[in-house]
Parts: sequence; structure tokens; C-alpha cells
Amino acid sequence: MLRLAVETEPGWVEAMEADLPTFLVDHAHCEKKAASTAINLIFRYQDRIELMAPLSRVAREELEHFEAVLERLAAMGQAFGPLAPSPYAAALYEGVRRPEPDRLLDTLLVCALIEARSCERMQRLAEELSDRELARFYGELVVSEARHHALYVDLALLWFDRRETLERLSALAQHEAEVLQRVPGEIRVHSRAPGGAP
Amino acid sequence: MLRLAVETEPGWVEAMEADLPTFLVDHAHCEKKAASTAINLIFRYQDRIELMAPLSRVAREELEHFEAVLERLAAMGQAFGPLAPSPYAAALYEGVRRPEPDRLLDTLLVCALIEARSCERMQRLAEELSDRELARFYGELVVSEARHHALYVDLALLWFDRRETLERLSALAQHEAEVLQRVPGEIRVHSRAPGGAP
Repeated sequence: MLRLAVETEPGWVEAMEADLPTFLVDHAHCEKKAASTAINLIFRYQDRIELMAPLSRVAREELEHFEAVLERLAAMGQAFGPLAPSPYAAALYEGVRRPEPDRLLDTLLVCALIEARSCERMQRLAEELSDRELARFYGELVVSEARHHALYVDLALLWFDRRETLERLSALAQHEAEVLQRVPGEIRVHSRAPGGAP
Repeated sequence: MLRLAVETEPGWVEAMEADLPTFLVDHAHCEKKAASTAINLIFRYQDRIELMAPLSRVAREELEHFEAVLERLAAMGQAFGPLAPSPYAAALYEGVRRPEPDRLLDTLLVCALIEARSCERMQRLAEELSDRELARFYGELVVSEARHHALYVDLALLWFDRRETLERLSALAQHEAEVLQRVPGEIRVHSRAPGGAP
């Protein structure tokens, strides 16, 4: 249902466990960025009234998750602060065509794929993390990520033909798989495992 | 407690009642902009950890209000869409000094003043609107706006001397009063009443 072209490599969760504080700082930044992306779409497409309330609710949920991750960091005595992001999202957006309305379709589908990848990885964290309490936290987030993935696809289907949408989603999922092969190995939600096969 | 230098002119609510649909569209844009401003501060000041959760909560509340105003517009059969903003906010931000940390102090205080002006006007709407149901809606928003005003001032006091903060707030409140004199008379949350004395 997540429409990803590849699965995350085995051993990814174990690799992230080597530095959970950094992983959580990156996760907090991702939630903040997801909220900002939803709000930017609301600003850019002011005449697409159907976007407004759903993306406003998405932004609110991402902010709730941002706050929840901040609380976890504080409880661990870990400071939140600047952290260079994975090049994943920027590389994904390079696949977005510029002329409208292609840009709208591709942006919604790239958002859908980022939510899908987050969902897939949080599911893995929920299953494999040794810290079972943190695992439960990720298990709770999986539901929202899956819902956000579906919402972005459903929004695309409001304005674009079903076949065109699903074909483009499939092409962008291939692009996402290629991007994931070439991001560096580092402790990030959207990177490869450090030291894994390139 | 709102620390404004001038009160909104008499007759302002009656003037807005001449075109409530436009007023509500502008109000929706203001809530959206307020959320975006709070998120932008979170992005700009990543090393000011004390800002993060409070401004994330502010952004969520502004988005809730955005959604509530959208619902009212839909119930009125009024379309939401692009609307040129009042020049008020942009003119207010011209009073912000550029070098840090002055920029942070001034930005927080300008945000506090915008919340204060919104609060003062929503209180007037709650008292004077002929549509008593809409009046109640504004009465509910007054509480949040007042809280956001206080929060922005409290955040400034985390890093800046009390006397410096209150003197700067007073100077920026004067600036706000001058800006309010020169914005056009039009149906907007932060403009003068159309046809009123300049």
C-alpha cells in the first residue's frame, strides 16, 4: 500500500541504534520540515481550496510529533539543535517537473513518497528497536505516516487522472529508490546505514 | 496588558460588517500567516531550544483557527482564495533591526504587537458584531490571541533584560500606531476602516 519501489536494507535499524540521540534530533527536524512543507503548499496553491484544511491538519500533526520528539530528547538529556539534513529530500524534489500543473502533481507525489519511506522505516523501528518503549513510540507514529501518504495521493487524484497519477507515482518511486542508493551512509531518518554496501 | 499605544478607531467593526465575507477571507490568511511566522522562527533560531515547543504549539493553534475560519466561509457559501494582504505586517517588520540579537528581540516584539492588535480587534468584534453567533466565535479567539501576545513577550524576556525589552516594546508600539495611521482604509483585520479619517 505504500507504493515504494525498494525496501530499506536489512540492518538499518541496528545501524541507527549506534547513535539514537542523533537519530532523534534528525527525526525532530524531519517532522518540522514536513509541517513546513504542508504549509508552503497551502501558501503556493491558494486557489486549490480542497488542499487547505487537509494540509493544515497534516501540518498540525507533524508539529505534534515534533513536540513529542523534543520531549524525548529532553528526557534523554540530549540537546536539540542544528543538524545537516540528509540530501534525500532535496534529491527527491529534483524529480519534480517545473511547469504547472505537473509541478503540483509531482510535489504531492514526492510528499507521498517521503511519508511512505518514513512509515516503512518507523514500522521497522517499531519491530526491531531494542528499546521497546521507543519502539512503541514509533509504532504509534506509523499510523499517521501511512495516513499522510494516502492523503497526498488522494489529493493528487482530485485533480489528476487516476492512471496518470499512478504511473507518475511509480516513476517517482523508482527515482526515490535511486536517490536512496546514493545518499551517504549516516545516522539519519532518510539515509543509508553507515558502512553498508553502497 | 496588551501594551498597544492606540486604540482601534470607533466604528471600525461597523465598517467591517459592510463586507464580512472578505473580512473572513483576510482573517483566514492572517491565521495561516501567523502559523507560518511561528514556524519560520523555529527554523531560523535552531539553537534557541526554549522557542521550539512553545512556538510549535502557537503554530498549531493558529492552524486550528485557520481551519475554523475556513469552515465558517464554507458555511456561508463564500470561497476562500487569494487576497492581497494589508500592508500592515510588512510595514511593522520594517521596524525590526537587522543585526542579531536585536533582530530576535524586535521580531518577537513585533509578533507580540500583531497578536495584541488582533486581540484588541477581536474583542471589539465580540462586543459589537450584530451577528451574535459570529461575535461568540471572536470571543473565543480573544483568549488565544492574548495568550500568544504574552508568550512572545515572555520569550523575549528569556534572553533580554526586562527594562530593555519593555522600552523596545513601547517604541515598537509607537511604530505600530504610526503604521496603523497610514495603512489604506479597506476590509482587512489589520487596516483602517474604509472612508474613515486618514
